[in-house]
Amino acid sequence: MVDAVPGSAPAEPLAIVCGGGGFPLAVADAAVANGRPVFLIGLSGIADGAIARHPHAWIRLGQFGRMLTRAREAGARDILFVGAARRPADWRDLAPDLGLVKRLPRIAQLFRGGDDHLLSGLSKLIEEAGLRVRGVHEVAPQIMVPRGRLGRVEAEQQNLEEARFGFEVLDALGPYDVGQGLVVVDRRVIAMEAAEGTDAMLARVAELRANGRLRLRGRRGVFVKAEKPGQDLRLDAPALGPSTVRYAIAAGLCGIASRAGTVMVIERENAVALADDAGIFLIGCERG
Amino acid sequence: MVDAVPGSAPAEPLAIVCGGGGFPLAVADAAVANGRPVFLIGLSGIADGAIARHPHAWIRLGQFGRMLTRAREAGARDILFVGAARRPADWRDLAPDLGLVKRLPRIAQLFRGGDDHLLSGLSKLIEEAGLRVRGVHEVAPQIMVPRGRLGRVEAEQQNLEEARFGFEVLDALGPYDVGQGLVVVDRRVIAMEAAEGTDAMLARVAELRANGRLRLRGRRGVFVKAEKPGQDLRLDAPALGPSTVRYAIAAGLCGIASRAGTVMVIERENAVALADDAGIFLIGCERG
Repeated sequence: MVDAVPGSAPAEPLAIVCGGGGFPLAVADAAVANGRPVFLIGLSGIADGAIARHPHAWIRLGQFGRMLTRAREAGARDILFVGAARRPADWRDLAPDLGLVKRLPRIAQLFRGGDDHLLSGLSKLIEEAGLRVRGVHEVAPQIMVPRGRLGRVEAEQQNLEEARFGFEVLDALGPYDVGQGLVVVDRRVIAMEAAEGTDAMLARVAELRANGRLRLRGRRGVFVKAEKPGQDLRLDAPALGPSTVRYAIAAGLCGIASRAGTVMVIERENAVALADDAGIFLIGCERG
Repeated sequence: MVDAVPGSAPAEPLAIVCGGGGFPLAVADAAVANGRPVFLIGLSGIADGAIARHPHAWIRLGQFGRMLTRAREAGARDILFVGAARRPADWRDLAPDLGLVKRLPRIAQLFRGGDDHLLSGLSKLIEEAGLRVRGVHEVAPQIMVPRGRLGRVEAEQQNLEEARFGFEVLDALGPYDVGQGLVVVDRRVIAMEAAEGTDAMLARVAELRANGRLRLRGRRGVFVKAEKPGQDLRLDAPALGPSTVRYAIAAGLCGIASRAGTVMVIERENAVALADDAGIFLIGCERG
């Protein structure tokens, strides 16, 4: 995982294309802590200005060609994408360059089909341009959910069984490129995530309990989150963070169980503090 | 399916325990049309007063023992449960009799675990009391979704492929006693049903499209509904009706694909008229 050892020649930098939020910097700092120099490429208007504390450049959304050029000029052979992506509020913020335009037909094609299809296709486009796409799990494994508990609260036996059942269901859905999350109470799946996303799914559980459609007393159930089997973690690793924890608390769950090593934790310190305060667990479970 | 042939001795009556709505009467009428006499047992305060046009009796919610007695007194050996069930608005409406009370420990036990577990357990309790539990598909097969289209609108090739994909995903979920419905657009599952129920799931799709989280132009996608593999259709056949059609229209879907023979259609005439008016299809698909 660590490309440089003390005393050896510095590894070539890792190019990190930064979307919004504080997470790109956390990943950059972790990579540097692991001995890997970085070169950040910020999406202007989206990435945090604080990325400027590392070697960096700015590009606008749509400058696919410039992104590749900046990474290569910095000497990078590896590139990593991280941070919240969103559609530009104003289409004038979009600055498609030749590198994007000449790939548009293939990109448009990729937008048909599931997420996996889209992302593996984009990753292929980048690799054809001579850069290797890397994932957070490769350059900053300390950011992924570890095995065991993250906070102070232990999962009870009942919750561990609920988690195991949830992982089984997610595995069964694997071939179909569906959701990455669900909520289990006893041996019953009460909510499954699809296009609405994790937060909306957890909000639904809170609502079903509030309106009496789901009658459960006290904290019950587990939010189970995993990568899809065969999912490309380089472009689309599942993630959880403080917002996930807040929604799980509001849904009245006992805790969150994620696959260890494949789910990223955003703002870990905050996430764990929130979970500890509410008395819910955060655990990482290994496969099998 | 039909227990009596013209000229033969009349079959013993089918006892039909009636919950709310017009569906119990539709089932009773269909059974009678098939040559089977009926004896209706209405849940008072819940079942439609119009059930009185058939031989009938009334019981209160909780009168499990009286239900069995009434059915046997009418000479029934078969019993069928149909119609909307709901918790009583006032607990004073509940009149637990000895027949219920002596089974309470086992009933309470059944409430742990998934729906299938609960229903197969209840069905066993009834069969131990000497009555066979029947399903609508057995006594009134004309009420189930037939093979092919129900209304005027044909499904297009793209929609048939979406339906096939949806059925595959539902089959994969079968062993886990999860949902019976999902929405597919292209090869992507955009919503999966769990505790929220069909209507809420379809409402979610409408909302995701309205708020721009799902960007789809025009009518797109199919609501796919099936029984769970191994599901006991006698107590818990999936159903669709006018309300389902209204939600599917609001969600901007192209149509509804159900498993032929295992999904019931409530108020078929209304459901089909709504679908025809909106230009969406209703089809029944055979397995395989």
